[in-house]
Amino acid sequence: MKIALDAMGGDFGAPNTVPGAVMALREYPHISKLFLVGDTPQIEAELKKLGCNDRKIDIVHATQVVDMSDKAWSAVRRKKDSSVSRAVDLVKYGEADAIVSAGHTGAAVAASMIKLRTLPGVDRPGIAAILPTETNVFVLVDAGANIDARPEHLLQYAIMGSVYSRHVLHYTNPTVGLISLGEEDVKGTEKTKEVFQMLKKTSLNFVGNIEGRHLFEDPVEVVVCDGFVGNVILKTCESIAVAIFQWLKHELVRSPMRRIGALLAKDAFTTIKDKTNYEEYGGSPLLGVNGICIIAHGASTPLAVKNALRVAAESIEQQVNPHIVEEVRRYHETTASLAPAAALR
Amino acid sequence: MKIALDAMGGDFGAPNTVPGAVMALREYPHISKLFLVGDTPQIEAELKKLGCNDRKIDIVHATQVVDMSDKAWSAVRRKKDSSVSRAVDLVKYGEADAIVSAGHTGAAVAASMIKLRTLPGVDRPGIAAILPTETNVFVLVDAGANIDARPEHLLQYAIMGSVYSRHVLHYTNPTVGLISLGEEDVKGTEKTKEVFQMLKKTSLNFVGNIEGRHLFEDPVEVVVCDGFVGNVILKTCESIAVAIFQWLKHELVRSPMRRIGALLAKDAFTTIKDKTNYEEYGGSPLLGVNGICIIAHGASTPLAVKNALRVAAESIEQQVNPHIVEEVRRYHETTASLAPAAALR
Repeated sequence: MKIALDAMGGDFGAPNTVPGAVMALREYPHISKLFLVGDTPQIEAELKKLGCNDRKIDIVHATQVVDMSDKAWSAVRRKKDSSVSRAVDLVKYGEADAIVSAGHTGAAVAASMIKLRTLPGVDRPGIAAILPTETNVFVLVDAGANIDARPEHLLQYAIMGSVYSRHVLHYTNPTVGLISLGEEDVKGTEKTKEVFQMLKKTSLNFVGNIEGRHLFEDPVEVVVCDGFVGNVILKTCESIAVAIFQWLKHELVRSPMRRIGALLAKDAFTTIKDKTNYEEYGGSPLLGVNGICIIAHGASTPLAVKNALRVAAESIEQQVNPHIVEEVRRYHETTASLAPAAALR
Repeated sequence: MKIALDAMGGDFGAPNTVPGAVMALREYPHISKLFLVGDTPQIEAELKKLGCNDRKIDIVHATQVVDMSDKAWSAVRRKKDSSVSRAVDLVKYGEADAIVSAGHTGAAVAASMIKLRTLPGVDRPGIAAILPTETNVFVLVDAGANIDARPEHLLQYAIMGSVYSRHVLHYTNPTVGLISLGEEDVKGTEKTKEVFQMLKKTSLNFVGNIEGRHLFEDPVEVVVCDGFVGNVILKTCESIAVAIFQWLKHELVRSPMRRIGALLAKDAFTTIKDKTNYEEYGGSPLLGVNGICIIAHGASTPLAVKNALRVAAESIEQQVNPHIVEEVRRYHETTASLAPAAALR
């Protein structure tokens, strides 16, 4: 399989993406080609530092970079030779099977939408973030692709999240929850109330509105929300997990007895710390585009980049897109056949 | 000082609110009168169970309860004899100095807005949730009072949050951050972009857009967002903190060595667990109404109710409302005087 990596993406660019790429090639032998897209001298310098001359690596030169201060859509239109655009082009023209970017999320989404288009029946793609529960994981859609989601977009996220949950996470009949302000169906904004009614009519395993406690304490398997809220949830979770472990660490060195205790229980901390570490998850698939695009964390470390490439490789194997197309088609057929009956009431 | 407690509020009603009230009376001798508003037989039964016949308690009978499935505004209009409405009436007519409710948040907000009115210059009240950092706390407005906030409401939250931060949390020049999707000013929804521009023109210590990491790892002192997002943040934080400690606990009992380690380091866990426990914070002031209203957690335990009453007592002492009125007036004067100059440009 062939993957295109936006080598200039992320807060640190090539110094983090290139080492991540090299790690991935060592660990995942089924990656047969890895395109590093960006400024050739910078990429070559990083490869040289690592003493890497793997023939599976192809550098694809791109003269521009989308800055974090650029506007997503205009950046894709104006910066035709940006690393993210060139990387998406490789997928568009069949050179690569997937693209991975840790850069400007909006630009990666816009480039994918413009160049790859959305899947039939899907209006807007959504980022599917994978979050941990104690014994498993759940999927949250949308984690930040679309901040002005309309009700039908949220409905499509629910369908796509369910497909992903079934085919990739192997839940047989995944429960779907809608983020709102209370569990009762009268709670929420006009938008969430409309989505609630739409979801109730689908064949999805919709359990209703959910709040914080349904995320980690008593989790559902698919969490649906708009991109603004989803992004805030994701970043809040990362932040509080990091903070709690930092606070705990400081408390644990406050006395010799606590230090000894911490040493004896070290493995327990490591297990939970790893579970809550976004670097281990690496990247989130952008569901709904006609191709495979993995959005990695902006602050990606080499480890996170490596894991984002792992997610890309898994996504190439899993091929959920045909299942999404099928499920969306089935939904549209069902609502179309229901519509006249509804009108008769 | 005199406080009115909505004794029927919260997921558990009188069995949790009454013990919390009794605890508060024991601990806070400056509460001279505590009105328990709700169904007299239920309240009396709980008091009897506790063997409490404190003369500081006054039961105020109310025949109705706002259910969680009721719509906020219509519940206040239709259920005239609900416990929350009656409790707010006590403040309105000067019998009590503050109201505390763990019931339907929307109903408490609506009752306060209808009966107490907003402060001069404030359009919509916002719930000020207090959240912990490692060494201090910060305030997040709005944690769920107003889910359809317009830009000027968010601006008012920033002003009110700053006043609260200065006068109650004692920050001299609190930093204010606006929750968005990225730190750059081009990131966010149309609404957050508009608020960004408005905040830049104020005399507040506005640091720009913020994301997750500015909540706990590198915190600002006042976090501004709309009520939907704020409520999601609050509940997500609670949920993940509870989850992490639960996961850790399960990991810590997996081997005898870990158990011993956990025992030796027990104090460290307790410190951080208490820091992240919402019960310790108790209640959040509803800023912007002409009176003192404290919103407690729906799942309040007696400890949480006790602490919400403590927050009410503190709020009565602190009297931030005159400062809010003054700051909002000053803001309106400044923008009024700036407007012609801006028009001349």
